[in-house]
Amino acid sequence: MTSTTTTTVTAYAAPAAKAPLERTTIERRAVRERDVRIAIAYVGICHSDLHQVSAGWGAAIFPMVPGHEITGVVREVGSAVTGFRAGDRVGVGCMVDSCRVCENCRAGLEQYCAEGPVWTYNAVGKDGQPTYGGYAQEIVVDESFVVRVPDALGLDVAAPLLCAGITTYSPLRHWGAGPGRRVAIVGLGGLGHVAVQLAHALGAEVTVLSQSLRKRDDGLRLGADHYRATADPATFEDLAGAFDLVLSTVSAPLDFAAYFALLRTDGAMVNLGLPEEPVQIGLQSLNGRRRSMSSSGIGGIAETQEMLDFCAEHGVAAEIETIRAEQVNEAYDRLLAGDVRYRFVIDTATL
Amino acid sequence: MTSTTTTTVTAYAAPAAKAPLERTTIERRAVRERDVRIAIAYVGICHSDLHQVSAGWGAAIFPMVPGHEITGVVREVGSAVTGFRAGDRVGVGCMVDSCRVCENCRAGLEQYCAEGPVWTYNAVGKDGQPTYGGYAQEIVVDESFVVRVPDALGLDVAAPLLCAGITTYSPLRHWGAGPGRRVAIVGLGGLGHVAVQLAHALGAEVTVLSQSLRKRDDGLRLGADHYRATADPATFEDLAGAFDLVLSTVSAPLDFAAYFALLRTDGAMVNLGLPEEPVQIGLQSLNGRRRSMSSSGIGGIAETQEMLDFCAEHGVAAEIETIRAEQVNEAYDRLLAGDVRYRFVIDTATL
Repeated sequence: MTSTTTTTVTAYAAPAAKAPLERTTIERRAVRERDVRIAIAYVGICHSDLHQVSAGWGAAIFPMVPGHEITGVVREVGSAVTGFRAGDRVGVGCMVDSCRVCENCRAGLEQYCAEGPVWTYNAVGKDGQPTYGGYAQEIVVDESFVVRVPDALGLDVAAPLLCAGITTYSPLRHWGAGPGRRVAIVGLGGLGHVAVQLAHALGAEVTVLSQSLRKRDDGLRLGADHYRATADPATFEDLAGAFDLVLSTVSAPLDFAAYFALLRTDGAMVNLGLPEEPVQIGLQSLNGRRRSMSSSGIGGIAETQEMLDFCAEHGVAAEIETIRAEQVNEAYDRLLAGDVRYRFVIDTATL
Repeated sequence: MTSTTTTTVTAYAAPAAKAPLERTTIERRAVRERDVRIAIAYVGICHSDLHQVSAGWGAAIFPMVPGHEITGVVREVGSAVTGFRAGDRVGVGCMVDSCRVCENCRAGLEQYCAEGPVWTYNAVGKDGQPTYGGYAQEIVVDESFVVRVPDALGLDVAAPLLCAGITTYSPLRHWGAGPGRRVAIVGLGGLGHVAVQLAHALGAEVTVLSQSLRKRDDGLRLGADHYRATADPATFEDLAGAFDLVLSTVSAPLDFAAYFALLRTDGAMVNLGLPEEPVQIGLQSLNGRRRSMSSSGIGGIAETQEMLDFCAEHGVAAEIETIRAEQVNEAYDRLLAGDVRYRFVIDTATL
């Protein structure tokens, strides 16, 4: 049975930039041939939600329903859908569409689509309609942008993997984190706490670089071999030239020259955080030993599925604090203050 | 026969920072067991010679005999030398020693020696003595830092390959320039004119990005497939996302964000030039598509030999203007003004 009309669902939306989120209703499109209609069970609160509801990254579309760490159960599929059926446990991440024909899309790098992918929210779809994210009861997504959540992963702890998981898994794989490789994870927050687990499961020697030693026990429990405070200058002396990969999960500006000096020959510093303000880097600090500065953005759809399968196999999941929908504004304040271990997840049954 | 005492040779030296070079004499060490004494035939004038005689890169040792693009003929070898004998045609580049036991040295990356290599000039050797470069009649070098110049290469046109050749060959190889890959060479000077030949010989599609079209005919003759002026804004529009590798041979500060935008997904911008003043790069401009910013410094000794053999096989050589030793200060002025096609080489017979 296919819904032929739009569906009205409850959601939480920001009516304007920097305004608190409010309970409201939105329309989801009628299910098309290749669409999957998903009853959302959980949605993670990503730091980028905060950037976007405050229009910190530039022009934004309001009202805005954030949320791109979505898990749920398929309620209905379009007539041409082949990969899913009602009852399947599924996830949706940061993208819901792309051009599908450009070089990057064909290479499974939909996140780098030449036209730009259609983001799950705060974007305009190929049909010209704004997209709304996962702080809602339901979402309708083309099956090509839906992934399967393995049975071994709870839908609640899996939700953050759709962004925090793939955002860290993809660069760890791309830059070869594995046995014999030394990886530093900068920051032990939403992304960092997943990155530590993934890097460890991939076989790398993992060091957390965090401002203080406050979360040291957590870091070691999650799989870090070492945990050092960046506030301690000795950290940078002791670890000069130590790492093949420094993966920064923080959005705050770093002293890049200092982190760059932690790399071995051919090592890579990869930034996942995107500060709102321009950050200046002296070119001189980037010179020497063929080290590189790079960045990475989420990952493709096939790689997202691979990541979920890897997490299921290796027991990797987000550590979460589940909240009720009406706590979302409070959660935003706490996230800004760094007061969460390690990801807020909204139980959408409370919408 | 091994010389047991030092040898006095004629040289050109800068007596102090920014002072003109003057004819003088220096002492070369007695030939040790593993040393090769070389009668220098030609020495190239590298842009870095200018930086160093003006102490532009920091503390410098005077008097300074520049020159690290050295070719010549072996005159004498130490008792334990196995790789060379009198009469061999040889070259010496930017390094004359390194620790030989660190990870980088063992990997053939002596240029990234953990202790720092001993540079051919403006450095202090393992024996505590200052090193003097190739603007001289002779040089004495450990055989591990001497390479063979293939017969097919003239000693004059081979000299610049010892720096300009390896500095461009190494990153072209490391970042995979070859068939099916699009490479931009920024700047058609001493390094650039060799880089174009090498990238073409390696099979890449080569585009020169130069300030103007003034040297266009040369660029195409040297093997470039395309030649575009960076002063023309259309260049950056037309070539957005076009390159796998952008190899910058210029020391002047660039608009890095503009060049970065020329890269495809996973593309690399590699800087060979080292500006004297700090250059600021906005982090935002480095984000997206997993593109990277990196640098590269010369190459290891084995790779330098490989480069010379490659050049001999593919007919790659520097285009030079041979000068007499007493023209060196005038040549410096002309090099600063960009008035050379493409490398000055001193005929040391004129010392």
